Amino acid sequence: MATKRIGPQTVRFDRPPVIIGAAAVAGPEEAQGPLGHEFDQTYPDLTIGLSSFEKAERQMMIDACRLALRRAGITEKPPAVDYFLAGDLLNQLITASFSGLEIGVPMYGLYGACSTFSEALAIGAKLIDGGFADRVLCAVSSHVGSAERQYRYPTEYGSQKKPYAQHTVTGAGAVVLAASGTGPRITYCTTGKVVDYGVADPFNQGAAMAPAAVDTIEAHLRETGRSVEDYDLIVTGDLASFGYEMAVKLAADRNLRLAKNYRDCGVMVYDLSRQNVNAGGSGCASSAIVTCGHLLKEMARGRLRRLLVVATGALFSPTSFQQGENIPTIAHAVAVEA
Amino acid sequence: MATKRIGPQTVRFDRPPVIIGAAAVAGPEEAQGPLGHEFDQTYPDLTIGLSSFEKAERQMMIDACRLALRRAGITEKPPAVDYFLAGDLLNQLITASFSGLEIGVPMYGLYGACSTFSEALAIGAKLIDGGFADRVLCAVSSHVGSAERQYRYPTEYGSQKKPYAQHTVTGAGAVVLAASGTGPRITYCTTGKVVDYGVADPFNQGAAMAPAAVDTIEAHLRETGRSVEDYDLIVTGDLASFGYEMAVKLAADRNLRLAKNYRDCGVMVYDLSRQNVNAGGSGCASSAIVTCGHLLKEMARGRLRRLLVVATGALFSPTSFQQGENIPTIAHAVAVEA
Repeated sequence: MATKRIGPQTVRFDRPPVIIGAAAVAGPEEAQGPLGHEFDQTYPDLTIGLSSFEKAERQMMIDACRLALRRAGITEKPPAVDYFLAGDLLNQLITASFSGLEIGVPMYGLYGACSTFSEALAIGAKLIDGGFADRVLCAVSSHVGSAERQYRYPTEYGSQKKPYAQHTVTGAGAVVLAASGTGPRITYCTTGKVVDYGVADPFNQGAAMAPAAVDTIEAHLRETGRSVEDYDLIVTGDLASFGYEMAVKLAADRNLRLAKNYRDCGVMVYDLSRQNVNAGGSGCASSAIVTCGHLLKEMARGRLRRLLVVATGALFSPTSFQQGENIPTIAHAVAVEA
Repeated sequence: MATKRIGPQTVRFDRPPVIIGAAAVAGPEEAQGPLGHEFDQTYPDLTIGLSSFEKAERQMMIDACRLALRRAGITEKPPAVDYFLAGDLLNQLITASFSGLEIGVPMYGLYGACSTFSEALAIGAKLIDGGFADRVLCAVSSHVGSAERQYRYPTEYGSQKKPYAQHTVTGAGAVVLAASGTGPRITYCTTGKVVDYGVADPFNQGAAMAPAAVDTIEAHLRETGRSVEDYDLIVTGDLASFGYEMAVKLAADRNLRLAKNYRDCGVMVYDLSRQNVNAGGSGCASSAIVTCGHLLKEMARGRLRRLLVVATGALFSPTSFQQGENIPTIAHAVAVEA
């Protein structure tokens, strides 16, 4: 049993859980981005006919779950899954909690800011490999309308943003993990530690999160004995363009050459030259919709075999910022192999 | 392996994880309550010399962790635990996240409102029984000052409360779980589903949460084949006096006689006849400090052998309430046996 724990932060699964279904749903700006054609469902506007951004975000999470379950061949209501693991960025996780009411199975709410996608996959994989579940449904979401008014200013204020600011990705991703079946497998996960490299500007989350990403990637490679080149692709969750460059530099300082096969989901999800999204995407949905909507499909197409998803989270709140605190950050890595 | 899953919501641990250390720290009102002498540390005021309620709450969580680790004989820095599982009520889990920075080990943030204490124990026990960890540190907190201004009104406004309103418990509880050692063991856990019985008044959380508690207790007894009498004590987390009475009635409707050996931590933590706390305590710390500070000590004293802790959570936010939503709730049960 102890063979699972191959390092202080890394687990290798004895019976790697299978991703038997996944789906990504995305908002209008993401639909117009370079991956727009990859998403399983897109919406023409931010409210999708509902009375608030929050209700729209919830509907997106439920839609992503429904599509992922359908792809996994699970059609019962409530679905034949043992756990629902979910999180989002809204205060008190209302997207996840109200979606949990709709899903109707045993639920654990998770919060790791934008790292919640890989936190959910990691805990889900452990519940399956540990013999506690046959199937687990994982879901995360974010929404530019609900996030902006909660974290910063309502969009209607028209406040200007710095070029390194990021744009919250609207959408949701859902994954069905199973003890057996057909699909890519989660082989390793490396759990992050909270780190603080002294960034206090909430508009500069990419810079705050880059060290956490590099810390976790370094721990993952050290503990698995793998090298950067062993992966066809390593993606961080939402460092965006400035954070991406910083991660490349920080990694180089530690003799890790992240470049050719390293990308950031927050950069991939938009066309930065054409769309008005500053440095790129952020939010739980950034890593989730790029992974569920695009990368897992690339694996199915045979274009990717080994993928490392490193979702990154900035663990601050408006209150902690106003009280003069730095932004602690975290990143969790999950290896997915065809 | 499948023998672990004895029902749709319940797991029986093959190698029941041991509680090798636990501690409770509590604020001034809790120190003056009937269990005041049981807490491992108490504070004379709500800010404990720091510049905000939020910083005080964080210090309380760190103090509880430090004391629980010391009791477990873990003195290294960072502590020799494999995971830190933590949650609290503040937006973006800042108490847990900033405590995670201080603790310095791999971390998962959890959110189940006031049910987070049993969510953390359940996930921690699964990480150990599944072979992913030797030791896990679990912690939760709440604070009347930080919670009141976030959820309701700053205390200074002096707004009146209804008799069924509850008073947020100030304090933190921490537990060190281990694969082996001396102490009571976690033998079963029953994971709750989100339920909504139509309560929309955020001051009436006890009524909102009572059905979730009864649902989970009923599922636990059905799936384990145990009866109410098999437990020396069943405690809910924070239903307080009105919610307690409602839980007893709802249980009776389902032919469950909860009475003699059933209590609520939110009632136990205060002297309702003497302290100005309306119907009693609420918050993550309610179940945590009563369990860590009092009940686990009663087990060590030989006065309790079988305990079922059913922490209860109201999964609403001020935004969901303002948007006219009901209060969905959840409860997770953890069986602790001497």
